[in-house]
Amino acid sequence: MTEPATTRDHIADRIAAELGHSFEGEIRVGGHYASLVRDGRTAYLSGQVPRVGTEVVVTGRVGAETSLDQARLAAQICTLRALAILRQSLGSLDAVDKVLRITAYMQTTPDFTQQSEVADAASDLLHRVFGEAGVHTRTSVGVYSLPKSAAVELDMIVTLREA
Amino acid sequence: MTEPATTRDHIADRIAAELGHSFEGEIRVGGHYASLVRDGRTAYLSGQVPRVGTEVVVTGRVGAETSLDQARLAAQICTLRALAILRQSLGSLDAVDKVLRITAYMQTTPDFTQQSEVADAASDLLHRVFGEAGVHTRTSVGVYSLPKSAAVELDMIVTLREA
Amino acid sequence: MTEPATTRDHIADRIAAELGHSFEGEIRVGGHYASLVRDGRTAYLSGQVPRVGTEVVVTGRVGAETSLDQARLAAQICTLRALAILRQSLGSLDAVDKVLRITAYMQTTPDFTQQSEVADAASDLLHRVFGEAGVHTRTSVGVYSLPKSAAVELDMIVTLREA
Repeated sequence: MTEPATTRDHIADRIAAELGHSFEGEIRVGGHYASLVRDGRTAYLSGQVPRVGTEVVVTGRVGAETSLDQARLAAQICTLRALAILRQSLGSLDAVDKVLRITAYMQTTPDFTQQSEVADAASDLLHRVFGEAGVHTRTSVGVYSLPKSAAVELDMIVTLREA
Repeated sequence: MTEPATTRDHIADRIAAELGHSFEGEIRVGGHYASLVRDGRTAYLSGQVPRVGTEVVVTGRVGAETSLDQARLAAQICTLRALAILRQSLGSLDAVDKVLRITAYMQTTPDFTQQSEVADAASDLLHRVFGEAGVHTRTSVGVYSLPKSAAVELDMIVTLREA
Repeated sequence: MTEPATTRDHIADRIAAELGHSFEGEIRVGGHYASLVRDGRTAYLSGQVPRVGTEVVVTGRVGAETSLDQARLAAQICTLRALAILRQSLGSLDAVDKVLRITAYMQTTPDFTQQSEVADAASDLLHRVFGEAGVHTRTSVGVYSLPKSAAVELDMIVTLREA
């Protein structure tokens, strides 16, 4: 993150601070895959769980031991983590032209129906940071299990201003 | 939909009429996301549930209270809804060059194995409307829960004839 | 597969032989969809289950009757099948420029947390065949049911060297 922080970067930092988390450190993955891969102007991001540092901070089954509010917090942390990866890779969130798509997977009870309310927390955050450029398509589904028992996992596709 | 309806549009209308549903009205979403986002010649569509107007018309768990036939109907309605969004956004289905991918999520029992038969209903409909241009890749999975207890959710990526 | 096999092709063949499987025959799908669709330099692949010939060779619920090792084998077979489709369509794996994304769905118990360990088997295989060009983004989720009770389903997006 050698470039000067932009308005978008500052908004993302402020939201992280409001939530009591920081994503300043380098984000690495262990295996033979990457957090972000670029193809020209398109960037794909790997599925993010609500991890801060080495800890998944929101786990459990949404609708049971994990509340709607906690799931919404998890969706926000997944999103902030994706933004941290974009910033780490591109220098600044100003490099993003448009958020194309997010897919929000959440570990739910069988009768949970508020997937959209959980995903709204991610969508609202993207709008707050990017404005109209953050208006994306999305898919929200309730799954049976997630890595490390994360409450939410979220992946993303964005376009960049320059290839 | 100010442009004259084409053969593809007419076929989509006829299928909707056969199923007893109409997708004439404007399709809007409530939150900070969009039903369709374009990136040059590529268009991403948000996950569609079998909603007609304000009502999700096929709910429940496929293999239990929801039959295979009802799930296939749900997949068709999701697909028609995606086509209505394309038409609303592009004027006519003639703007579509190729359907690239669909992902079909369905809310199933644990031992349900006919995900492909459900997704075939969407694939067949796309072939009926678009012919060879409707031959897509697809992924079909059984999930634990879907928004509003929808039986099926389906998203789509298409390419357009002109950017 | 009329072109001469390349180093990548040979590695894929060797891994398949190590696992005791062959993907030499033509891979076809029954319905109105395709195993692979190209859009310029981008190729989308349909979700692959661990099918060899006509049989799904790793079924069941990961964490219960299906072990972590069996699930990892399933992820490898799904990946080899995707590579066989690429080779069938493009002549050789040398036509691949970059693996952009995989999504790994696995049929798990409710408390399964090792989704990443399962997906690592696919990621490692891609790295072995493609080297740096195989380093992709990925999303790993535990789902409730998969076609034919497959233990794993995996889809892929790659870029090609030439449109």
